[in-house]
Amino acid sequence: MIIAIEGVDGVGKNTVAQKLSEALDIPVYEPLQTPFGRAFKECFLNKCFTPYGEAAGNAALYSMLPKEDLIVVRYVVSPAVYLHHYSGLDVKWFLDLMKHCKVRMPDLIIYLYAPLPVIEARLKERRQRFWTERDLKGLSETYEWVLETFFANKYVKVENSGLLSATVERALEAVKAKGVS
Amino acid sequence: MIIAIEGVDGVGKNTVAQKLSEALDIPVYEPLQTPFGRAFKECFLNKCFTPYGEAAGNAALYSMLPKEDLIVVRYVVSPAVYLHHYSGLDVKWFLDLMKHCKVRMPDLIIYLYAPLPVIEARLKERRQRFWTERDLKGLSETYEWVLETFFANKYVKVENSGLLSATVERALEAVKAKGVS
Repeated sequence: MIIAIEGVDGVGKNTVAQKLSEALDIPVYEPLQTPFGRAFKECFLNKCFTPYGEAAGNAALYSMLPKEDLIVVRYVVSPAVYLHHYSGLDVKWFLDLMKHCKVRMPDLIIYLYAPLPVIEARLKERRQRFWTERDLKGLSETYEWVLETFFANKYVKVENSGLLSATVERALEAVKAKGVS
Repeated sequence: MIIAIEGVDGVGKNTVAQKLSEALDIPVYEPLQTPFGRAFKECFLNKCFTPYGEAAGNAALYSMLPKEDLIVVRYVVSPAVYLHHYSGLDVKWFLDLMKHCKVRMPDLIIYLYAPLPVIEARLKERRQRFWTERDLKGLSETYEWVLETFFANKYVKVENSGLLSATVERALEAVKAKGVS
């Protein structure tokens, strides 16, 4: 079983993933922290790949997930969203590629969202990569489109703008409702 | 322009590539010697990927080739041959993936071959990975099938069992005949 945690930068994915991991006793797996993942990340940050080449790299990366139950931050959905948004990637093609590569699909996607000012405040605090309001808005819309079009029965939308404990509570309810735990 | 040098282990690809590089003043590019390529190789030697995942990794790797004229040892054809031979990869699918990823296709493939006893003697000398006669025969047949089926007008078969200079001479003639230099 794979629970994917999704959403734009600054929405609190890693914090929520950690809390869920503790509550469910399922490890958090970070594909981009494997040796291959790190080399892959270095290349895509430097725009070495063509867009579809980068998509293919994701398929390779995801094809080597361990077989156990996992919580994964940014999984399948994120590259589809970013590559579609910035390079026009055909999302259906991307998901077919995953299928061919026998990539494990997420059983539940917890899509975190928060009002833009909340996200901007968090990014500022972390001195993280600068996203314009236009970027964040566009990416959020693309997330919603990809999730609704390709993962309609697999995702829940959880607001993460108030108490962390409340967000985690709602995420745990979603896990329970999906019967994936 | 890309000249790919192909053939089974021990057939003399690197030596011939080096000689061609000197004669044509075109650099030899080794995808598996880039940081991403090394991480990728480590994974496929350890069978971390699914077969199609490994194929996708090749597409990512090849999508970042520099734009200049290059001589490349084992390029596009080799992964198609090995993954088809050992895992039943659909070669047509693999080549379509390359197209999607805008991978530069080889303009000329120089397929080196030699009698089995010659290859076996070279592999023994190098104390390299052991290939059975059955493996080498099977792979050679798969090379010929892939080349003839998908690269009919792009490849030349050059025997490399006698004098190296004679092999290089024949390869250079092929380059000239293809008008790629």
